[in-house]
Amino acid sequence: MREKHPQGSYITMNELVLPNDTNTLHNLMGGRLLHWMDIAAAISAQKHCNNIVVTASVDNVSFSHPIKLGDVVTIHAKVSRAFNTSVEVRLDVWAENIPSGHKVKSNEAYYTFVAVDDDSKTVPVPAIIPQTEEEKELFNGALRRRQLRLILGGKMKPDDATELKALFTAVKQ
Amino acid sequence: MREKHPQGSYITMNELVLPNDTNTLHNLMGGRLLHWMDIAAAISAQKHCNNIVVTASVDNVSFSHPIKLGDVVTIHAKVSRAFNTSVEVRLDVWAENIPSGHKVKSNEAYYTFVAVDDDSKTVPVPAIIPQTEEEKELFNGALRRRQLRLILGGKMKPDDATELKALFTAVKQ
Amino acid sequence: MREKHPQGSYITMNELVLPNDTNTLHNLMGGRLLHWMDIAAAISAQKHCNNIVVTASVDNVSFSHPIKLGDVVTIHAKVSRAFNTSVEVRLDVWAENIPSGHKVKSNEAYYTFVAVDDDSKTVPVPAIIPQTEEEKELFNGALRRRQLRLILGGKMKPDDATELKALFTAVKQ
Amino acid sequence: MREKHPQGSYITMNELVLPNDTNTLHNLMGGRLLHWMDIAAAISAQKHCNNIVVTASVDNVSFSHPIKLGDVVTIHAKVSRAFNTSVEVRLDVWAENIPSGHKVKSNEAYYTFVAVDDDSKTVPVPAIIPQTEEEKELFNGALRRRQLRLILGGKMKPDDATELKALFTAVKQ
Amino acid sequence: MREKHPQGSYITMNELVLPNDTNTLHNLMGGRLLHWMDIAAAISAQKHCNNIVVTASVDNVSFSHPIKLGDVVTIHAKVSRAFNTSVEVRLDVWAENIPSGHKVKSNEAYYTFVAVDDDSKTVPVPAIIPQTEEEKELFNGALRRRQLRLILGGKMKPDDATELKALFTAVKQ
Amino acid sequence: MREKHPQGSYITMNELVLPNDTNTLHNLMGGRLLHWMDIAAAISAQKHCNNIVVTASVDNVSFSHPIKLGDVVTIHAKVSRAFNTSVEVRLDVWAENIPSGHKVKSNEAYYTFVAVDDDSKTVPVPAIIPQTEEEKELFNGALRRRQLRLILGGKMKPDDATELKALFTAVKQ
Repeated sequence: MREKHPQGSYITMNELVLPNDTNTLHNLMGGRLLHWMDIAAAISAQKHCNNIVVTASVDNVSFSHPIKLGDVVTIHAKVSRAFNTSVEVRLDVWAENIPSGHKVKSNEAYYTFVAVDDDSKTVPVPAIIPQTEEEKELFNGALRRRQLRLILGGKMKPDDATELKALFTAVKQ
Repeated sequence: MREKHPQGSYITMNELVLPNDTNTLHNLMGGRLLHWMDIAAAISAQKHCNNIVVTASVDNVSFSHPIKLGDVVTIHAKVSRAFNTSVEVRLDVWAENIPSGHKVKSNEAYYTFVAVDDDSKTVPVPAIIPQTEEEKELFNGALRRRQLRLILGGKMKPDDATELKALFTAVKQ
Repeated sequence: MREKHPQGSYITMNELVLPNDTNTLHNLMGGRLLHWMDIAAAISAQKHCNNIVVTASVDNVSFSHPIKLGDVVTIHAKVSRAFNTSVEVRLDVWAENIPSGHKVKSNEAYYTFVAVDDDSKTVPVPAIIPQTEEEKELFNGALRRRQLRLILGGKMKPDDATELKALFTAVKQ
Repeated sequence: MREKHPQGSYITMNELVLPNDTNTLHNLMGGRLLHWMDIAAAISAQKHCNNIVVTASVDNVSFSHPIKLGDVVTIHAKVSRAFNTSVEVRLDVWAENIPSGHKVKSNEAYYTFVAVDDDSKTVPVPAIIPQTEEEKELFNGALRRRQLRLILGGKMKPDDATELKALFTAVKQ
Repeated sequence: MREKHPQGSYITMNELVLPNDTNTLHNLMGGRLLHWMDIAAAISAQKHCNNIVVTASVDNVSFSHPIKLGDVVTIHAKVSRAFNTSVEVRLDVWAENIPSGHKVKSNEAYYTFVAVDDDSKTVPVPAIIPQTEEEKELFNGALRRRQLRLILGGKMKPDDATELKALFTAVKQ
Repeated sequence: MREKHPQGSYITMNELVLPNDTNTLHNLMGGRLLHWMDIAAAISAQKHCNNIVVTASVDNVSFSHPIKLGDVVTIHAKVSRAFNTSVEVRLDVWAENIPSGHKVKSNEAYYTFVAVDDDSKTVPVPAIIPQTEEEKELFNGALRRRQLRLILGGKMKPDDATELKALFTAVKQ
């Protein structure tokens, strides 16, 4: 299986915030944004894997700025690291009120996907070779995020999370 | 402002998985479930705060079992802890194929919400007094999860996360 | 086939009234509510029958209070009586404006469902044994409602509707 | 206020049954049809009243034939009788599989609507003068159906329902 | 294959403009209207062909009047001409604010459809015999519109578009 | 008002074809694609105008390849020419089945938009200066397409369409 570069999985999605996407304050509902992010990330993961993918997890996502009715939400998605049968996708989300020119970064997030065949059996995915400095940093951080996911999912003990522990041990001294 | 019990914010939501909620494998898409969970959690948070609420963050969510077209998704939501102007909501998600009687736990998750007035200014929320053993455990764990959110959001240094550090320090000895 | 209790089919559904559910007065449209009630009732009927079910009829439903954008609609559904291959489901619908604490009973209604196999052939359903006083009353009234459905559907002559006629004959004397 | 004829409120709606309108048997869900019928009936009621209208009630509706994915649903709606501030709309629903030429009558139903102003206050509606034999029959039956609605809604005693009682008294002799 | 009349394919569709169909000015979005017109035209084409049809093209459509939230959109569709395996459908679209009685013609448009079997292979369609003066005019104009489509689609050279060229040649003299 | 380059209005939209977007052959419906194209083009037009825009017209669009359930539709949109108060947007639409790597050009199309203020009054838009050879070609062709739109909309006589007539006159000799 051929190794691939992160750029090959890069995609952009633009969505217009319509009335049914908003709450009574006319702000985009968080759940609707999580849904769009899942679709954008799934397309990116598919492009890397050239395979059907299913969502395995979403990491902690924070919503700091209200996004208004009529704003344009732009989601950038790119695979940050490939594991055996799964990939981590990094998302950068922007919200823009185009008439006023006001544009803010809304979120950064990580979704992971598992590649599966038609019987929902996992299948191997191509390795990834980061090219730019930013891609290398995302690639390296992916191990630490993976350990956090495993601990939070009850599948790893904190003591075994070498990468993650370093964060706390380092600052301890 | 009157203190309240977690039970007062308890709600149940049932959703039937329809064709447009599914991917090409006829499984519920992760993003659609995150959207439903956001609505259920928002209703629960509203019940505790008696106020409009907006999603502030969603913690790490894992999807381990595919949920099929025609399954019933049951979401239980209850406020686990109240802070000054925000609440953490605990979600338990089940998926059931009723004709076959097959029922699995799909997820546990935490969403946080901020209470706001009509001008999107934050407003105080009632304190919460956990009653059952389970509620007390969720209440206590909420501090640790909050520190993790602050670190992941770049708003706290790992060294200041006393509750969270204890997890790693304890196992080190 | 094992007899069952009404409680086994009890379910609750909560829905948030979003912009697309409303008319130009910002009130929930009646048809949208009828749609949600159908889904809630179908889940309840499925739970009793452990089988696929299809809607056979909906009884007279009245809408007396406008339900507003942002309100939470809570639907309680429970099987009231089982016939050979069909069940009657009783629905109680509440609408609540949570920030203001204003909550009203919106509707009571009855939907009936037929249990079918994959070829849309009807199949027998478990009998039901009412437990509480309220369940017994609903169980008894079900015969009368059934006669009314048959008359309105042109499948029974008024003269044969013994249960229903009693209502009019009684008051005549 | 000018009197009007039923024909002035006659409208036709055609809808294509799409995947999300169907259950796991690929049949149109009853609740989705009730929703379409509500929209069609509301348009018809608006045409008679030249006013905003809100759904007041739906009479007993039976679903006897499964309607399949890809079928065309045709709804004919026409006001059958006007009361002081409300109208009854008669609906005839057909389902057609156009490639095969198979067409069946799916339902007949009655929805009632109240005319309201912008503050949701009821307003008077024009009287209606039935023209054809069929329109006269629907006009006359409307009183009987109205009494049934009032009894079922707990707003009239069976003994006061003169029109309706006649049905049972007649057959008694 | 039997010849048919245009009237046999005539259908009417009424849609209520709901919040999610509108932009931030509360006007119906052009794309939403194009979607409704496609469904209406497809039903009409199906009725003529008694076959599954797929959209082949839409001709130039102009939107001159804003259509408001709450307006009723009425689409009339009728096949104007049949070719070997395709049909052209003429659409007339009206928008009406019923309470105010304000009604305007919104659009005239032409959609073409190809009849296909279950394997997406094209199949022949019945010929059409226009009856009224208006139907004959639409039937004759269809050749000219077809040439324009072929030129715009790069499948015909302007010089070969005899019907269309006549328009320009005529006025040249 | 500052002149702008086409690149400033360039946007990409990716959409996953979900069940409710498809017909009974599991192909994307033409009307759904026209709807997505309208949203993508509106975002692009907004970016050039920094203003609210409303759809004025869509030019002839052909659909030559079926797009399947699960495919990813990628829409590229860029303003090709600005007039006084309106812009023409060029769209390139691709459909890709990512697992199989099969990607086809689905459409090229032109949508025009008018810039309006909050009272739906037209407002001037910035001029555009094409940079690349392709942009210059699109810029020049825009006049010809505009004349065609005016003729088809009955607002220009064929004899006055100098740019367009040249096409036919040239080939005549």
